[in-house]
Amino acid sequence: MPPRFVLYYWPIPFRAQPIRYILAYAGQSWAEPERDRVMALYKSAIVDQPVPFMGPPVLHDRQNDVWLSQAPAIASYVGKILGLMPGTTEKDALTLKVLGDCTDVLQALTRDCGALMWTDESWTSFAEHRLPRWLQIFEELGVRNGLQTNSGALLGTPQPGVADLACSALWITIWDLLPELRDVIAANAPTVLSLSQRIANTEAIDAMRAEQKARWGNVWCEGEIEASLREVLAKWAIDRSR
Amino acid sequence: MPPRFVLYYWPIPFRAQPIRYILAYAGQSWAEPERDRVMALYKSAIVDQPVPFMGPPVLHDRQNDVWLSQAPAIASYVGKILGLMPGTTEKDALTLKVLGDCTDVLQALTRDCGALMWTDESWTSFAEHRLPRWLQIFEELGVRNGLQTNSGALLGTPQPGVADLACSALWITIWDLLPELRDVIAANAPTVLSLSQRIANTEAIDAMRAEQKARWGNVWCEGEIEASLREVLAKWAIDRSR
Repeated sequence: MPPRFVLYYWPIPFRAQPIRYILAYAGQSWAEPERDRVMALYKSAIVDQPVPFMGPPVLHDRQNDVWLSQAPAIASYVGKILGLMPGTTEKDALTLKVLGDCTDVLQALTRDCGALMWTDESWTSFAEHRLPRWLQIFEELGVRNGLQTNSGALLGTPQPGVADLACSALWITIWDLLPELRDVIAANAPTVLSLSQRIANTEAIDAMRAEQKARWGNVWCEGEIEASLREVLAKWAIDRSR
Repeated sequence: MPPRFVLYYWPIPFRAQPIRYILAYAGQSWAEPERDRVMALYKSAIVDQPVPFMGPPVLHDRQNDVWLSQAPAIASYVGKILGLMPGTTEKDALTLKVLGDCTDVLQALTRDCGALMWTDESWTSFAEHRLPRWLQIFEELGVRNGLQTNSGALLGTPQPGVADLACSALWITIWDLLPELRDVIAANAPTVLSLSQRIANTEAIDAMRAEQKARWGNVWCEGEIEASLREVLAKWAIDRSR
């Protein structure tokens, strides 16, 4: 039987990774069409798109024939269907806040998807101020919501929910693929890091990570902006180790 | 009695405008603290913030003692409480998609909140390609979901919901404050425009718009990026009228 969900995204982790963590954790299989089919959908006239959208990810839920764009909308939709949303007005909203924060961190690390390239100066300023602040935002929210009880509960639920999975997808993917940032993550968000590792090491997600590594290597956001990021990161890591 | 909701945002429309449209339409009064109090919250150490956040808007729901950041999370939270979310998994998700699109349009029009300034060349390219495409995305979603039946139903509900209100807040604020863009809006999203005008002209929202105009004048996103946008817009409007 073909899988219920079809996820249209580039063959990279980046924006789709939280959605993949949710699907994998819930034991779902899903299809990811080849890059040229994603590109064709992306380039289509708006009136020909199954849901009018600017950029992927796009999800097709074949069972309900629902098409959706916008990563946070997709993550919460899939999470709702798979029983991974908290289900109270307050905690559902906090989950959306976390999903918005995840998007903003990806935006910041890629300077709005490569609108600007990194320079040593702009990177150092970001790495010393804004990036630690972002990490502290996740850490503090987690700590206040019961993460320190070690219950795997970023938002206070006994089992990982969409917020925990998105948080893990964000930081573990960075941990795995941009290892120069490990010190900053560990220093500013130690409890979020251990939650994220615990989630990333569950069987289905660990298997997905291994498969992605075999298929995609170390690619994170790809393109000129990834090259620019890796260039400043390499120099910055050497400077810091002196 | 002090109002239930307190909205911390700069004294400008921009990102908070969809939230204000929702509150006003639902007949709520709400408080907006002065700029220096918003700035103090924004600059606080993360551990001292009532909800850990990077940038405003931030909402305090005093009745439930809930603090939230991220405009789409706040809009859907307030919308849920005030009975303005559709209430089905699919339409709630489409509402979040529209809220995400609204955020992206603001991001695009301000080049990621002023990370880059506009040049005549970059503006002309944006105004001729990406901006019409954004408008067509709203138009097509609206048309498919029943907007052409003139029921005021961007997402197919008989009464305006969060998606309709956010859409109106986005495009009417641009219509009012960046009038050089009226032709592009009318040409690419005529039915979304009339829905948006109908919503913006309802009594409570119309009164709020008049009050904002009296208090804030024509400010939209403020700062250097608004100056840059107005400069390219003025030249572009002259070129187009030739």
